[in-house]
Amino acid sequence: MTAPRPPATDGTAPRPPARRRGRPPRTESAGTRDRILAAAREEFSARGYEKTSVRGIAKAAGVDSALVHHYFGTKEQVFEAAIEVAFAPALAAPDAIAEGPADGVGERLTRFVLGIWEDPATRAPLLAIVRSAVDNDTAAAVLRRLVAAQLMRRIAARLRLPDAELRAELAAAQLVGCAMLRYVIRLEPLASADLEQIIARVAPVVQIHLTAP
Amino acid sequence: MTAPRPPATDGTAPRPPARRRGRPPRTESAGTRDRILAAAREEFSARGYEKTSVRGIAKAAGVDSALVHHYFGTKEQVFEAAIEVAFAPALAAPDAIAEGPADGVGERLTRFVLGIWEDPATRAPLLAIVRSAVDNDTAAAVLRRLVAAQLMRRIAARLRLPDAELRAELAAAQLVGCAMLRYVIRLEPLASADLEQIIARVAPVVQIHLTAP
Repeated sequence: MTAPRPPATDGTAPRPPARRRGRPPRTESAGTRDRILAAAREEFSARGYEKTSVRGIAKAAGVDSALVHHYFGTKEQVFEAAIEVAFAPALAAPDAIAEGPADGVGERLTRFVLGIWEDPATRAPLLAIVRSAVDNDTAAAVLRRLVAAQLMRRIAARLRLPDAELRAELAAAQLVGCAMLRYVIRLEPLASADLEQIIARVAPVVQIHLTAP
Repeated sequence: MTAPRPPATDGTAPRPPARRRGRPPRTESAGTRDRILAAAREEFSARGYEKTSVRGIAKAAGVDSALVHHYFGTKEQVFEAAIEVAFAPALAAPDAIAEGPADGVGERLTRFVLGIWEDPATRAPLLAIVRSAVDNDTAAAVLRRLVAAQLMRRIAARLRLPDAELRAELAAAQLVGCAMLRYVIRLEPLASADLEQIIARVAPVVQIHLTAP
């Protein structure tokens, strides 16, 4: 792991009027950081982990590569940060999904996951993860660490049933497969089917995985 | 689409004793063709569609690139041929799966699909397809054409139920997702769970997708 480097003074980012050496002022910092993360999500999404470079992310964000290293460190760390931001709403999901009657948990989870995939803005980072993780062990490890540990295990913990983690993963398998065939492979008729029709078919099955004896 | 070119006379393949111009003798042809296909499956599996080259396949098979073009044509055609050979047993599946009682069709399909993924020899070409199709539109189109049309629609046709294609695809989604999380992402505990335990959990759900009212 490489330590984050200081920003290059010849960076193409607009320089604040009274810039100090080292860390840029907080407001500039937040704006630049967000711009780099947005560019990173775009690049990872379009190209996958392996073909994305820190240089390419920097170029897309309109900054010098050194600034990307400064904020995030290595490419793996940029990837993890890009995914983490994209997953922030999902990390609140276990609580939202666990609320309400237990016999509706399948529908709430299905609606939540397919809702994220249905919106092109939130679909992009998921595509980035899928494209990267099937192709690269580093990206797969980031996915396991972040999604599996933080999302699946938290849902599992709330089920309070034997084999809760396996249950959560088999439910996730149905949703991941659905997203793959509908949004990535674009298999017809699934790709053009009405979302509510899909939820009506998939939610009962997710419910079975999560709570059936 | 490029027309297949004649084999180069400076190919590195061992030349048969009395080689004629144009098509090599039948036995040599079958052996070389199979060796190229095996190399193609290896290469596509390890690198995905985009990063695999006809030159790389030729090198792995110990032949000249021109011979690969001669037998198969373009890279897309090599890919389709490599997948098609790998899918030959699967293309017989609809008949095998449809035989026997209707209430066992979910288990027969689940056992068949996960059985292919469980065996490293048959898993490799599937990995090639998944890795390639998430990353490349050409490979995704080959997958749709071959798997969707020939496999899913044939299973659907035997169901004789409304929405049969959508049913087959949602069942496939469960199986594809399961394979992704178990064999590609290697999410625990799913990755190490006993195959029979997974079949016991997944088969009833596949059955519901295929035949539930």
